[in-house]
Amino acid sequence: MKKFSKKLTPKLVASQIECNTKFINNCALNNVAELAEANENSVCFFENQKYLEAVKNTKAGLIFVPLDFDEKLDTNLMFVEKPYIYFMQFVKKWLDISQPKIEKTIENTVQIDTSATIGENVAIGHNCIIAKNVKIGNNTIIEANSVINQNTEIGENCHIFANCTIYADCVLKNNVIIHSGCVIGADGFGYIFFENIQNKVPQVGNVIIESNVEVGANTTIDRATIGSTIIGKGTKIDNLVQIGHNCKIGENCILCGQVGLAGNSELGNNVYLAGQVGIAGHLKIGDNALVGAQSGVTTDLAKNGKYFGMPAIDANLRKRIIVSEKWLPKVVRNFKKREK
Amino acid sequence: MKKFSKKLTPKLVASQIECNTKFINNCALNNVAELAEANENSVCFFENQKYLEAVKNTKAGLIFVPLDFDEKLDTNLMFVEKPYIYFMQFVKKWLDISQPKIEKTIENTVQIDTSATIGENVAIGHNCIIAKNVKIGNNTIIEANSVINQNTEIGENCHIFANCTIYADCVLKNNVIIHSGCVIGADGFGYIFFENIQNKVPQVGNVIIESNVEVGANTTIDRATIGSTIIGKGTKIDNLVQIGHNCKIGENCILCGQVGLAGNSELGNNVYLAGQVGIAGHLKIGDNALVGAQSGVTTDLAKNGKYFGMPAIDANLRKRIIVSEKWLPKVVRNFKKREK
Amino acid sequence: MKKFSKKLTPKLVASQIECNTKFINNCALNNVAELAEANENSVCFFENQKYLEAVKNTKAGLIFVPLDFDEKLDTNLMFVEKPYIYFMQFVKKWLDISQPKIEKTIENTVQIDTSATIGENVAIGHNCIIAKNVKIGNNTIIEANSVINQNTEIGENCHIFANCTIYADCVLKNNVIIHSGCVIGADGFGYIFFENIQNKVPQVGNVIIESNVEVGANTTIDRATIGSTIIGKGTKIDNLVQIGHNCKIGENCILCGQVGLAGNSELGNNVYLAGQVGIAGHLKIGDNALVGAQSGVTTDLAKNGKYFGMPAIDANLRKRIIVSEKWLPKVVRNFKKREK
Repeated sequence: MKKFSKKLTPKLVASQIECNTKFINNCALNNVAELAEANENSVCFFENQKYLEAVKNTKAGLIFVPLDFDEKLDTNLMFVEKPYIYFMQFVKKWLDISQPKIEKTIENTVQIDTSATIGENVAIGHNCIIAKNVKIGNNTIIEANSVINQNTEIGENCHIFANCTIYADCVLKNNVIIHSGCVIGADGFGYIFFENIQNKVPQVGNVIIESNVEVGANTTIDRATIGSTIIGKGTKIDNLVQIGHNCKIGENCILCGQVGLAGNSELGNNVYLAGQVGIAGHLKIGDNALVGAQSGVTTDLAKNGKYFGMPAIDANLRKRIIVSEKWLPKVVRNFKKREK
Repeated sequence: MKKFSKKLTPKLVASQIECNTKFINNCALNNVAELAEANENSVCFFENQKYLEAVKNTKAGLIFVPLDFDEKLDTNLMFVEKPYIYFMQFVKKWLDISQPKIEKTIENTVQIDTSATIGENVAIGHNCIIAKNVKIGNNTIIEANSVINQNTEIGENCHIFANCTIYADCVLKNNVIIHSGCVIGADGFGYIFFENIQNKVPQVGNVIIESNVEVGANTTIDRATIGSTIIGKGTKIDNLVQIGHNCKIGENCILCGQVGLAGNSELGNNVYLAGQVGIAGHLKIGDNALVGAQSGVTTDLAKNGKYFGMPAIDANLRKRIIVSEKWLPKVVRNFKKREK
Repeated sequence: MKKFSKKLTPKLVASQIECNTKFINNCALNNVAELAEANENSVCFFENQKYLEAVKNTKAGLIFVPLDFDEKLDTNLMFVEKPYIYFMQFVKKWLDISQPKIEKTIENTVQIDTSATIGENVAIGHNCIIAKNVKIGNNTIIEANSVINQNTEIGENCHIFANCTIYADCVLKNNVIIHSGCVIGADGFGYIFFENIQNKVPQVGNVIIESNVEVGANTTIDRATIGSTIIGKGTKIDNLVQIGHNCKIGENCILCGQVGLAGNSELGNNVYLAGQVGIAGHLKIGDNALVGAQSGVTTDLAKNGKYFGMPAIDANLRKRIIVSEKWLPKVVRNFKKREK
C-alpha cells in the first residue's frame, strides 16, 4: 500500500479521465493498493480474471474495471478500456502532484573536481565523487556514495541511484536511470594467451548509453576494447545483467534479469530476452526477436522470430522436442530391446 | 585456520559437552582448521569417510569424531553423534567468548537525518546515510558506506554489511543479515509498451524481510509494483540472487547462488532452489519442493515434490530422460535408415 | 576511439617493431579506433576477413595488417605476423608513455586505523575504510568508497576499483586487479537444518587471491567455512561470477561472466569455463578442461577434455545429441503409431 500526502475523491479522479462511472459515495482516497490489502481509502484496479474473488471481497474505495465488468460491488467503479494502463497513468500523476519539491542539493561531502561541469538544478548525494572533466546535465540526480570517473558525461534528467560506479570516458545521454550497485564501463574481459600466461588486452573504449534507458540494480556493462559498447535508446535492462565489451544493443529492447551477453554481439530493435538468457560472442540478433528464458544463443537469429532452448532454435520446434522428451526413455528401452 | 585469542584445552572443551573422550595430553588449543592444515593447537572434526587419509595424517590437537570411530590416532578425541554439528556449535561458542567487545560507535562521518530514530547500542560505520524517518532497532550494526533511504525500518540485532543500498519504505524485521553489495527495494522491472516505446510502470510498493533472514552478497530484491515483495521468516538467500517484484517467499527456504525469480511468484515454506534455478512469473511453488540446479520452472509445482531440468519436471523422469539422451543419436540414425 | 595526449607518427611506430612497412605519408597519429570509426589520425589493425570491407573503406592513418595482406590501400601499413597481438602491445606502450604521472595521494577523507600498515607510493581514494591491522603493499591503488576490513593483506601493485568490499582476514597477493562492486570474503552459504530452522554455520575461514589475478565487476568470492577459498595465480574471472566457500581454483583459469561454483569444488590449471556455467559442490575439474556455455557440471571432469550441456558430458556426444534432438518429435510420433 502506497500512501499519498495529497488526498483525492472518486469524482475528482473521474473528472480527469473520460469514462463511465458508478459512484456510491465520495470517499477520501489516500492510497493505492493490491485488492487484497486495500481499505476504504484505496484505489485499485481489476483486469485479470484470476483476481475475481479478490475484487469481490476487496474493501477498496475506487476500482478501475474493464468496460464489460458486471459484478455488483458496493464501491465506486470506473469503467475503462484497459484498467491496468489507466490505473498506472493515474498513479504516475498522483505521484507527481504528491511529491514534495525535493531541494536539489549538492551535499558538502561531495568531492567535485574543479574541472567538472555541473548543470543547473542538479542534486548530488553525500560522499559522491565527481572526477576530472566530468559533465553533468541539468536536473540530474546522483544519489549518495556513487563514483563518476574522469571525462564521463551524464545528460539531463538522469537519475543515478546510490552506490553506483561509472568508469572513465563513458557517455550517458538524457533521462537515463541507473539503479544502485551498477558498474558501467569496467574493463572488457579480454586476454591473449602467450608465454604461458593470460595477457590482459588493454580496454581503451567506452560505454555509450542512449536516452531513456533504464538499468537495473547490480548490472554490469563493460567498456569496449576499442570503440564503444552501446545501449540503444529506450532499452530497459533488469537486475544482475552482464553486457560484454563491444556489444551494440538496439532501441526499445527488454533484457530481463540475469541475462548475459558475451563480447561483440549485436541486438536489433525491440529484441526481448527473457530471464537468464545467454548470448555467445560475435552474434547478430534481428529486430523483434523474442528469446525464451534460459535460452543459450549460439548462432545469429533472424528478425521477428521466437527462439527457445539451449541451443536457441525456433520456439515451436523446441516446444515439440520438449513434449517428445518425456517419451524418450520408452523409445530408448524399446530400441535396445529390438537391437538385441 | 582461524585463530582465537582465548586459549582452551581438550579437557575444558570436553567438560562442556556430554561425550566419551580419549585424552593423550592436555595441550593448548588456539585455532580451528581443516584436517590437512591443522597443527598441534588445532581443533578439527572428522565425519566424511572421504577425509579418512586426512584424519590419519593430521597434526590436530583435538578432533570431534563419530561414536564408532576406531582409528588409532595419537591425539585427543571426542566421540559425538554428529561431529560436524557439535564442532560447529563449539566454534560458535569459542567465537562468542573470544570476540573483544566491539564498541558500538556511530561514526562522526555518518549522515543521520534529524527525523531518524536510532535504537540503543547501535553501530553505524563511516559514511553511511540514514535518511528521513528511518528507524533502526537496538543492537543493530550497519557497516561503512551503506545507504538506508527514507522511511525504511530496520529491526533489532540486524547486521547490514558495507556498501549495501536499501531503498525507501522497506521493512527489515529482527536478526536480519544483509551482506555487502545488496540492493533491497530497487524498482521492479515493469513496462507497458504503447506509443512505440516502453513506458515505465511506477513501482510504489516495498520490500518486507521477515526475521532471521540472511541475504548473500550482491543479491537484489525488487520492491513491489503495488503491495510488498516478501521474504519469509528464516529464509536464507545466497549471493547474486535476483528476486522480482511482488514475489512472496515462504519461511525457511533456501535459495542458492544466482537463482532468479521473475515477478509475482510465490514460494511456500521450506522450498529449496539449487544454484542458477530460474522461476518464471506468476507461479506457485508448494511447500518443501526441491528444485535441482539450473532448472527452469515454467509451471506451478506441487508441494513435497522433487523437480529438475528445463522445463522443471519430476526429477526422476528428468533423470531417466538424461540417461536416455545418450542413446538418442543411435536411435535417430536407426530411424533415418528405416525411413529410407 | 581512444585519444592519446602523446602524438606519434607511422615512422616512429615502425621504428619500434621489426616489420615490413608501406609508408605513404608521415601523418600525426593521436588515437586508436575500430576500422569503421577511424579518422586520418587513427591507428587500427586488420586480421579477421569478416572486416575486409571495413578495412577497404577505413580512413585510418596506420594499420597493422597480416604478412600476406595484398589489398591496395591508400594509407600506411605495417606487415606483422599477428596484427592483433602486435597492435595490442603497441596500445599498451602508448598508454604507458601517454599517461600523466598520477600523484599517488591518500585522500584526507580516508579512514585508516592507526594499526594499519601502508606501503610506499600507495593511492587511496576518498571515503575508503582501511580497518585494523590491514596491510597494503607498495604502489597499490585503492579507489574511492572501497572498504578493506580488519587483518586483510593486500600486496604490491594491486588495483582495487571503487565501491569494493573486502571482508576481514583475506589475503590478496601482488598485481591483483579487483573491479568495482566486488565482494571478497563474505560468509559462505552454510546452514544446518535442525530444530525446524536453518542454523547458520559460522564461517571462520578466509579468501586467498594469488598474484596476477583479475576479478570482474560485481563478482562475489565467499570465505571458507574453515581454511581458505583460493584463487590461483594468473586466473582471470569475469563479471557477476559466484565462487562458493572453500573452492580452490588453479592457475591461469578463465571463468567467464555469470559462472557459478557451489562450495568445495576444485579446478585444476588452465581450466576454461564459458559463460553461465554452473559447477556443483565437492567436484574436481582436471587441468585444461574446457566447459561450454551454460553447462551444468554434476560430476568430476577429467583433464584435457571438452564438456558441454546440462549435465556436462563429452562435448562431441552432446553436440550429436543436440543434432539428433530435432528428429525427436518425428521419432516419437512414429513410435506411438507402432505402439498402437
